[in-house]
Amino acid sequence: MNTLFAEPAPLDQQSLPRGFMFASAACGIKKKGSPDVALISSDRAAVAAAVFTTNRVKAAPVLVSHRHIEESGGVARAIIANSGNANCATGAGGLAAARATAAAVAREVRCPRSQVLVCSTGVIGVPIETDKLTAAIPDLVRAQRGTAEAYAVLARAIMTTDTRPKWSAASCRVGGKEARVLGCAKGAGMIHPQMATMLAFVVTDAALTRPLAARLLREAAGRTFNSVTVDGDTSTNDTLILLSNGASGAPPIRSAGPDLDSFSRALESVCHELALAIVSDGEGASRVAEIEVRGVASDRVAGAIARTIAGSPLVKTAIAGADPNWGRILAAAGRALLPNGARFNPARAEIRLGGITVCRRGQAHPFDESAAHQKMLERHLPILVDFKTGPGRATVWTCDFTEEYVRINASYRS
Amino acid sequence: MNTLFAEPAPLDQQSLPRGFMFASAACGIKKKGSPDVALISSDRAAVAAAVFTTNRVKAAPVLVSHRHIEESGGVARAIIANSGNANCATGAGGLAAARATAAAVAREVRCPRSQVLVCSTGVIGVPIETDKLTAAIPDLVRAQRGTAEAYAVLARAIMTTDTRPKWSAASCRVGGKEARVLGCAKGAGMIHPQMATMLAFVVTDAALTRPLAARLLREAAGRTFNSVTVDGDTSTNDTLILLSNGASGAPPIRSAGPDLDSFSRALESVCHELALAIVSDGEGASRVAEIEVRGVASDRVAGAIARTIAGSPLVKTAIAGADPNWGRILAAAGRALLPNGARFNPARAEIRLGGITVCRRGQAHPFDESAAHQKMLERHLPILVDFKTGPGRATVWTCDFTEEYVRINASYRS
Repeated sequence: MNTLFAEPAPLDQQSLPRGFMFASAACGIKKKGSPDVALISSDRAAVAAAVFTTNRVKAAPVLVSHRHIEESGGVARAIIANSGNANCATGAGGLAAARATAAAVAREVRCPRSQVLVCSTGVIGVPIETDKLTAAIPDLVRAQRGTAEAYAVLARAIMTTDTRPKWSAASCRVGGKEARVLGCAKGAGMIHPQMATMLAFVVTDAALTRPLAARLLREAAGRTFNSVTVDGDTSTNDTLILLSNGASGAPPIRSAGPDLDSFSRALESVCHELALAIVSDGEGASRVAEIEVRGVASDRVAGAIARTIAGSPLVKTAIAGADPNWGRILAAAGRALLPNGARFNPARAEIRLGGITVCRRGQAHPFDESAAHQKMLERHLPILVDFKTGPGRATVWTCDFTEEYVRINASYRS
Repeated sequence: MNTLFAEPAPLDQQSLPRGFMFASAACGIKKKGSPDVALISSDRAAVAAAVFTTNRVKAAPVLVSHRHIEESGGVARAIIANSGNANCATGAGGLAAARATAAAVAREVRCPRSQVLVCSTGVIGVPIETDKLTAAIPDLVRAQRGTAEAYAVLARAIMTTDTRPKWSAASCRVGGKEARVLGCAKGAGMIHPQMATMLAFVVTDAALTRPLAARLLREAAGRTFNSVTVDGDTSTNDTLILLSNGASGAPPIRSAGPDLDSFSRALESVCHELALAIVSDGEGASRVAEIEVRGVASDRVAGAIARTIAGSPLVKTAIAGADPNWGRILAAAGRALLPNGARFNPARAEIRLGGITVCRRGQAHPFDESAAHQKMLERHLPILVDFKTGPGRATVWTCDFTEEYVRINASYRS
């Protein structure tokens, strides 16, 4: 993972999927005249799949985009996103604003409104200034370009408290042809301080059927975006969209085989890099922990335990202090809510921190405290928790919990 | 609640239940020679009920005390507790240590070993020094007294990172006679920094049947100890014990009626005060929020929502910043895991912070930001979240999440 705690490597033109264009602008929603509106469009109808927040409180653009994907039968021409206002808890006015924004893009791009997906991120509960947004759209459509520069600027326009842009590119072989996958994301936590939150847009010039696009995106999201956490606060606006327009000329991927494998790997690589970029840009984060749980009944059980460990404030503060405090890890595992009343035996637990065994058979295993502390000072900390009783395994990534996190979040508005 | 952010009022001799004695000492488990072992005993067999941690990782004393309550049929003569070592993740040696400690007390008090309950709190994963503990017991039994002074010293001996002792007393009328309820607790969070964790001991000279004692304690715990959170990390050692010895001479309470009501009120008052004392002594806490959720399908649904709001790092940091950031409260409610697929309509939500309405019908309601900020600077902050669709309600107490919390927990061992 080369984008941990660093800007991603510059994109070259070759890594851009064919047939997509990008634009961004400052329409005045953000106070300081920073870029706050972004457009991604395809020159032809693209298969569209999306994963939305599971929060019961869903922002207007989430509701509207979800509806548009249903109405269009999973086809889209464009994604329009704004930062600076989440358009959440904004009532009927918020829904009208999201629809008006999609309609304005549809007019310029010349497609049905349902082929435009809308995303917002920013403050919750403040009516969005629709006029500013719609007024910016004609110029935005005229300005769009299929260049790496345009993409890099777009990746910044969707940022809120992010400290750096996040993108990732990969390629794959489909039917002997090269196809490309490119994604960008914003988010410095599952939810931001009054900002809401994680947006990620992935485009590919491979051709996918609609059911396959939906399934591959869901699977990739489960192993990447849904396997990271900053603070456990699921946002009201989380949206991950995949557009696949087939402009590579590669034949459509329809079923299992080497083409599907190659594409899946590229998609998962892009989602994985973006998800880790989000964790390492987590508010106040100084290091990233990779928490692997093994040896329980199923992957689902392992995932539930790994997520509970990754969300524990006591584990996360111990990581901030580079403190090999494995008792907190075991205690967090013990309180995980497991599916179907699953169980595990803590007396078989083995725990390794940065490769150093600190607990065996559920008890202290002698280790060099200062060596472990040194190891834990590194930017990337692998944590292995093995219950040695079953084949289930899962990996979850989290960042540490620092005083800076509290400073950022206790002072956001006051 | 008069013990919020303050030492409890001194106890007078009249508030002590008859027939109980108290002692504490420094046996050398804590490094600095601070008191670290405490004994509560009854001069006759007392009905005993207990509530233990639900963590799958249970400390040895939890396993042993649970077994003792079963073996004795819910009868106990004494509670022996140590601080400084949780005796958790210590394997067969830990179980032997807990049994040996109970046996040492049983020898001196002259009762079956199963009538002694054992509790530990402190660091996880370090073998406990049983010899120090058992060697201290004969003197401890000789030193025990039924005085307010002895009780006040005992309440300090069970402290770990607590900044002050916690006790609460109440009285009730049973069959025309006065009976007394007295409790003490330790805990500065659901779990401590490597310390584990919440212990509470309640004694009464009212007489209860065993099933009634178990039921009343479970109900009181649900509305008090199980309705507070500091950091969401359930400990491996949580133990709440009720001893009822009937020494008041009041007739046994057997069924519903004014006697039961009077006793229940006294028991809940003591548990409530102790639970709030724990929250207001939460690590780094500067204020306590009382989060009431109303207007959903059932009390259970309301409890699940209130607990999720109370556990949200973003809500807790907003409270630390006295920031009337209601969007975070609504977003936290939206991600609550509700029993039986229960639902609520966020579009009907009303939110009040310190009595000031900030959200109505799920949208911003105009309010004076600076007045709300001032209100939120108070030590006790009532938060009301009303979904206006059902009779369910619940109240949960939490403390704010400050930089001091991170400082305490990131530096505990390193």
